[in-house]
Amino acid sequence: MIYRINETHDTTLRSWVESANQPGCDFPVQNLPYGVFRRRGSIEGFRIGVAIGEQILDLRKAYAAGAFDDADDLTLAAIEATRAPTLNALMALGPEAWQALRLALSRLLRESAPAQVTLRQALLPQDEAEYSLPAKIGDYTDFYTSIHHATAVGRLFRPDAPLLPNYKWVPIGYHGRASSIGVSGQNVRRPTGQIKAPDQAAPVVAPSARLDFELEVGILIGGSNPLGEPVPIDKAESKIFGLCLLNDWSARDIQAWEYQPLGPFLSKNFATTLSPWVVTLEALTPFRTPWSRPADDPPPMPYLDSAATRSFAGLDIDLEVLIQTARMREAGEAPERLSRSNFRHSYWSVSQLITHHTLSGCNLQAGDLLGSGTQSGPTPAEAGSLLELSCGGRKPLALNNGEQRTFLEDGDTVVLRAWADKAGFTRIGFGEASGTIIEPYSASI
Amino acid sequence: MIYRINETHDTTLRSWVESANQPGCDFPVQNLPYGVFRRRGSIEGFRIGVAIGEQILDLRKAYAAGAFDDADDLTLAAIEATRAPTLNALMALGPEAWQALRLALSRLLRESAPAQVTLRQALLPQDEAEYSLPAKIGDYTDFYTSIHHATAVGRLFRPDAPLLPNYKWVPIGYHGRASSIGVSGQNVRRPTGQIKAPDQAAPVVAPSARLDFELEVGILIGGSNPLGEPVPIDKAESKIFGLCLLNDWSARDIQAWEYQPLGPFLSKNFATTLSPWVVTLEALTPFRTPWSRPADDPPPMPYLDSAATRSFAGLDIDLEVLIQTARMREAGEAPERLSRSNFRHSYWSVSQLITHHTLSGCNLQAGDLLGSGTQSGPTPAEAGSLLELSCGGRKPLALNNGEQRTFLEDGDTVVLRAWADKAGFTRIGFGEASGTIIEPYSASI
Repeated sequence: MIYRINETHDTTLRSWVESANQPGCDFPVQNLPYGVFRRRGSIEGFRIGVAIGEQILDLRKAYAAGAFDDADDLTLAAIEATRAPTLNALMALGPEAWQALRLALSRLLRESAPAQVTLRQALLPQDEAEYSLPAKIGDYTDFYTSIHHATAVGRLFRPDAPLLPNYKWVPIGYHGRASSIGVSGQNVRRPTGQIKAPDQAAPVVAPSARLDFELEVGILIGGSNPLGEPVPIDKAESKIFGLCLLNDWSARDIQAWEYQPLGPFLSKNFATTLSPWVVTLEALTPFRTPWSRPADDPPPMPYLDSAATRSFAGLDIDLEVLIQTARMREAGEAPERLSRSNFRHSYWSVSQLITHHTLSGCNLQAGDLLGSGTQSGPTPAEAGSLLELSCGGRKPLALNNGEQRTFLEDGDTVVLRAWADKAGFTRIGFGEASGTIIEPYSASI
Repeated sequence: MIYRINETHDTTLRSWVESANQPGCDFPVQNLPYGVFRRRGSIEGFRIGVAIGEQILDLRKAYAAGAFDDADDLTLAAIEATRAPTLNALMALGPEAWQALRLALSRLLRESAPAQVTLRQALLPQDEAEYSLPAKIGDYTDFYTSIHHATAVGRLFRPDAPLLPNYKWVPIGYHGRASSIGVSGQNVRRPTGQIKAPDQAAPVVAPSARLDFELEVGILIGGSNPLGEPVPIDKAESKIFGLCLLNDWSARDIQAWEYQPLGPFLSKNFATTLSPWVVTLEALTPFRTPWSRPADDPPPMPYLDSAATRSFAGLDIDLEVLIQTARMREAGEAPERLSRSNFRHSYWSVSQLITHHTLSGCNLQAGDLLGSGTQSGPTPAEAGSLLELSCGGRKPLALNNGEQRTFLEDGDTVVLRAWADKAGFTRIGFGEASGTIIEPYSASI
């Protein structure tokens, strides 16, 4: 299933939800991302909604109001799958159903839609909502797709061998912790762990003093493959439901001491933050870019290569990370940008991640999450972590209000944002994934 | 919650299920492990049962037959939690409820129990059963607790630094793949992956030629801890529902090429096999042993140490691994033992694994699975993997029928077994975890 530009991408479409037509809006009628929400403070169950402008269309209410009474069977199956409190059932249906529902929602939310009078009752302003994770996440796998990040971090951890010999052959990934994944707005407790300074003989147990963010794209899997059956590269995209933002919080001092030989563990398992809105792959169709790699690098191995997909395997998605310190918040100052990057710099395409992941026969399931790895761009200012931006903590960043940062301090809020924008198409936004560092656990352990 | 020897461990107890009274039986009335089963080939749903001798007591049927009509509230809550198709709800109730249900089951299955006439209707012979995973596993974490295994494998992967400097301080672990965990009896498809011979410039894609088993103990988590709140060492045991056998199938050639810097990925994510029966921690009370480490080693850091638990933190559980090749099976020959070890050799206790895992604030949930890591003993014959037994593939093992093995061949069945046995107490068995290697995926990838 390869999505093509169709009527849902038509840049002339406007919505009867006025705020969706504002320039720069993250959620125009061409976007239609899914999330799980309820009215803030309510005791009602979480339900599935679609972001439109500054509003959320409650799909359960829209269904109850009869908006899908004339839908065909495929659309009906899709909308009925949205009556659950997570997206998993919809994700399991596959691209034809996703596409059918997207088209129906696009038509319902357009300026001319006759159902708009009814559907206004199914709207909730986003600023009155609270969110849950979009899916019950089964397994979470984090990749390492930015060669710029891998090189920069490798230089800090292994000055003699920054980029390991396997990097240009293997889409490096590892299994992450699913239980501690949370949704934007969460407080992240500073983790405690074993830390060993290079000049000390023994480690100490202490709260991390080198707490960092990682600017990543999350890939939410829809569909599944049977155990033992790899997903060929040309079919990999059909397993992708959509993309979101992902902050892979990392404690660098804990990581440095624990990570050999089996990889990061406590340094990453205390929290991962996702944005609440999942932007479908179909919505991103206009922002596909050719995928290539430097001429001097080895070509991808045949199972990771496909003439049919090379022309559009990249995704041109702008990414940025901002910080709002406690002092900035108290002074009413907006978050300040720390870095800006783009997902097109990824050394591996999303299809390659899926095909490699399943090469061994590993089974993916609807609701699984892949992280792209930190999306650092080619220049130092495009780095997706403080570890890189501060050169391993040696060069503090100066903030506009006079504060400095090497790593995160308690009270710091980190905000990830993303959007796709291109002449001739409507800008598609991702909303944001934010999290605030709070003090370490204080009780005796 | 520290379990003590009580009436359920009484070695004079006999069951009205005759086969439970046979010497050497894995499942005497002193054991009472839980599993999820149904009649083989049936389309009825899986349900929870307790192994007793060669039979399974169907808890749903026992409940329906009125066996728990006079139970107290705690026991009733526990038995009602077993009406689900997985153990998760029971696991979430905590040790008091587990202990209450165990006591009730012990009394129902003893020789003198008045309910035996009724309960005979709730029995199914094990050889007429098929099994499902005992729990819906949320997150799976694999540790590395045998210093003998870590040293032997380290020598093969890193001859210059076999045991890394962090090993004696950090209970090394990493996140594994939950979706590909299966139950004993499964076929395991030989995984394909990138493999690079040391003398080659580039990797090839091929089925693993160095497919191995790993003899491990699985630890099934009951209860949970809130995100951000570590579990102190003295409370860690209360989070353990029970133990099972775990085979962490490993493709050594794929592992060697991919594992740096983020740890094993495709080399481990294609399959993990569990035994169907979960032996409760309470059943293992008589087999606790003092936990200690060599006097020259650093003592455990304070958060991993507890005077109260040192006296019994070890578990004296015999472990063995057997192989039955296709030729042996055709000739009607029983599986042949490859190695025998014991869980008491573990460098870290199960409590230490839980406390370390949560030190960062990581939240454990009922149904999570911890693997102990390969339980190799101090001598080469006690190694828990072929990698060690064959000295990295250099010394083939001679089998009794004249066959040789360095690594596993298609058609090989690997069987893990375990039991605890000690003078003055009744032998407690784990049953087995078996899996058979089948040919690699043949379709073009």
